Amino acid sequence: MSSNIQTVAIELGDRSYDILIGRGLLTDPARLADLAFKGDALIVTNETVAPLYAAQMQATLAQLHPRVDVLALPDGEAHKHWGTLNLIFDRLLSTAADRKTVLYALGGGVVGDMTGFAAACYMRGIDCVQVPTTLLAQVDSSVGGKTAINHPMGKNMIGAFYQPRRVLADLSTLDTLPSREFAAGLAEVIKYGPICDLAFLEWLETNMHRLLARDDDAVAYAVRRSCELKAAVVASDERESGLRAILNFGHTFGHAIEAGMGYGAWLHGEAVAAGMVMAADLSERMALLRSTDAKRIRELIAAAGLPIAGPAISPAQYLELMRVDKKSEGGQVRFVLLDGLGRGCVRPAPDDLVLSAIESHTAG
Amino acid sequence: MSSNIQTVAIELGDRSYDILIGRGLLTDPARLADLAFKGDALIVTNETVAPLYAAQMQATLAQLHPRVDVLALPDGEAHKHWGTLNLIFDRLLSTAADRKTVLYALGGGVVGDMTGFAAACYMRGIDCVQVPTTLLAQVDSSVGGKTAINHPMGKNMIGAFYQPRRVLADLSTLDTLPSREFAAGLAEVIKYGPICDLAFLEWLETNMHRLLARDDDAVAYAVRRSCELKAAVVASDERESGLRAILNFGHTFGHAIEAGMGYGAWLHGEAVAAGMVMAADLSERMALLRSTDAKRIRELIAAAGLPIAGPAISPAQYLELMRVDKKSEGGQVRFVLLDGLGRGCVRPAPDDLVLSAIESHTAG
Repeated sequence: MSSNIQTVAIELGDRSYDILIGRGLLTDPARLADLAFKGDALIVTNETVAPLYAAQMQATLAQLHPRVDVLALPDGEAHKHWGTLNLIFDRLLSTAADRKTVLYALGGGVVGDMTGFAAACYMRGIDCVQVPTTLLAQVDSSVGGKTAINHPMGKNMIGAFYQPRRVLADLSTLDTLPSREFAAGLAEVIKYGPICDLAFLEWLETNMHRLLARDDDAVAYAVRRSCELKAAVVASDERESGLRAILNFGHTFGHAIEAGMGYGAWLHGEAVAAGMVMAADLSERMALLRSTDAKRIRELIAAAGLPIAGPAISPAQYLELMRVDKKSEGGQVRFVLLDGLGRGCVRPAPDDLVLSAIESHTAG
Repeated sequence: MSSNIQTVAIELGDRSYDILIGRGLLTDPARLADLAFKGDALIVTNETVAPLYAAQMQATLAQLHPRVDVLALPDGEAHKHWGTLNLIFDRLLSTAADRKTVLYALGGGVVGDMTGFAAACYMRGIDCVQVPTTLLAQVDSSVGGKTAINHPMGKNMIGAFYQPRRVLADLSTLDTLPSREFAAGLAEVIKYGPICDLAFLEWLETNMHRLLARDDDAVAYAVRRSCELKAAVVASDERESGLRAILNFGHTFGHAIEAGMGYGAWLHGEAVAAGMVMAADLSERMALLRSTDAKRIRELIAAAGLPIAGPAISPAQYLELMRVDKKSEGGQVRFVLLDGLGRGCVRPAPDDLVLSAIESHTAG
């Protein structure tokens, strides 16, 4: 039985759903009973997570579905492509899965993105429950309904906006998360302070040591607050036409780092961390952010054990990689900048300032 | 300049769009000007249609978009799979297409389905205009927003509900349509009579000779009425949870024919034609439809030059193929039947009656 469960309600009309946050969700079928699923279940996970949690998830779901199947995909961002996605379709079709079949995404962001996209496409849409097992996925992929696979020419280029029926953020799954991945998840938590909540930024500065010690209450609060903040932004802009873009703070630089190094060399959160430092620096150079505030962001990121400088990619290569990124429209790259601490904004920036911001925060 | 243009308005809230029907649409940029597109255009077509219409379409669109590119896919249902879809993504990414890019689907149902699905997925959704050049695509794919690709284990298994911004049904493109394909298109026109409009069925009985002679007014009326009837059904059930299923009259048998013969051997409309004869026969065996009414359907289909018997697939194989079809839920196949002429309904049927309906209408 689970207790001390917190709920974040994501309000999106007939696509509304709840995020449940707490310990023991994975073993508590009551947390899904109200959805009254009628079909079979397929748990999609990866080879790392499967040995840890697939069996208990399967036992729980056996109380809700006539049949519960498990599919373990190869682990890692490098496998987030059509070939792996198709393994899900192959399994669904070879088991004659119908429109009532429910997909459960048990794993990190890659499993969540691929499973969500598979649910969006299979028979043009079947139900999906997200069960994120990394901090990054709990705070980031839980809200927003963005699903995607990568294309050799670009990250997340092929996907859909597709909302899950429920999200189970079971904090006990974080117990097995390696420190490096936990820290990478903190990057997406930290992000919300600078772009939309100064009080949360201050809370993070005060409580970073508790988070790194994985104090249950602190982690639960950080997950809940991140989901709430993201939900508020997403609710006002479900299909990412405007405001929602501020959620990509650090991501334009970050995606360039990931693409430049080859996906997987840097964790997504690590790339976003260095990207946030560059974006804060660029905000300062554009006279939007005070130097002391840029420094606070840098120090908080360092305190989380995250990189505050990018890898040795040439600034020119950064620019090239960013132009292909999807945040680029009509060839002009638009950056998420800080118009003061706690207020994200989106605008283009002169190449020379972008280059300087990169050069100032590049290793070596 | 186009004249005598008829409009069918598809009302779907913020996804509403117009279908324009008439001659000369392909060469009239004014018919798209109000959409105020801001990005580049990519015309997706196939190797058969490209030499006929791509150049004039490109010239028209050059008045609306900064750049207009053309991509000709291999022609045919056999190519409606991921590999071909990916050619669209490859082109979009290699030309750095952004979210303002507009896809134009210039061709039949296969081009429309793949281009629509590509638009649904590229960067999680970009604008799409459908320019159907076959009768089948004009009456069938124009309404409903169903897009998909095939999977080796099933037709249209991977797709999305995604509405176009506009549909241009240019009747002049039918001038180059081979007779066999024109007749196949008539199958989807005929369909609407038995399932929802007895008066239209009577009009078809009276005017079939005009349609076969491709009389402009008759074809325009048949296209418009088919779109109107489909729109009325779809508006009440956009995501195909109930009523919309009647649009699949003849399709459960038809898909089995297509799959059993290998996609492409029979045209979709031909398979649906034989499928409608079987479905009408099954309706009669289930005491829903009078024998004289089943005969009227058979005679109308024959008058259109369409097959009234399926190919020599064994009835047992039909059953097997239908069980995999997506209309099957929980293993039980649900058939679209006629509860009297002009009234479609959906229900399961006993295997022995299904087998008899197949046996009575199998060639050889």
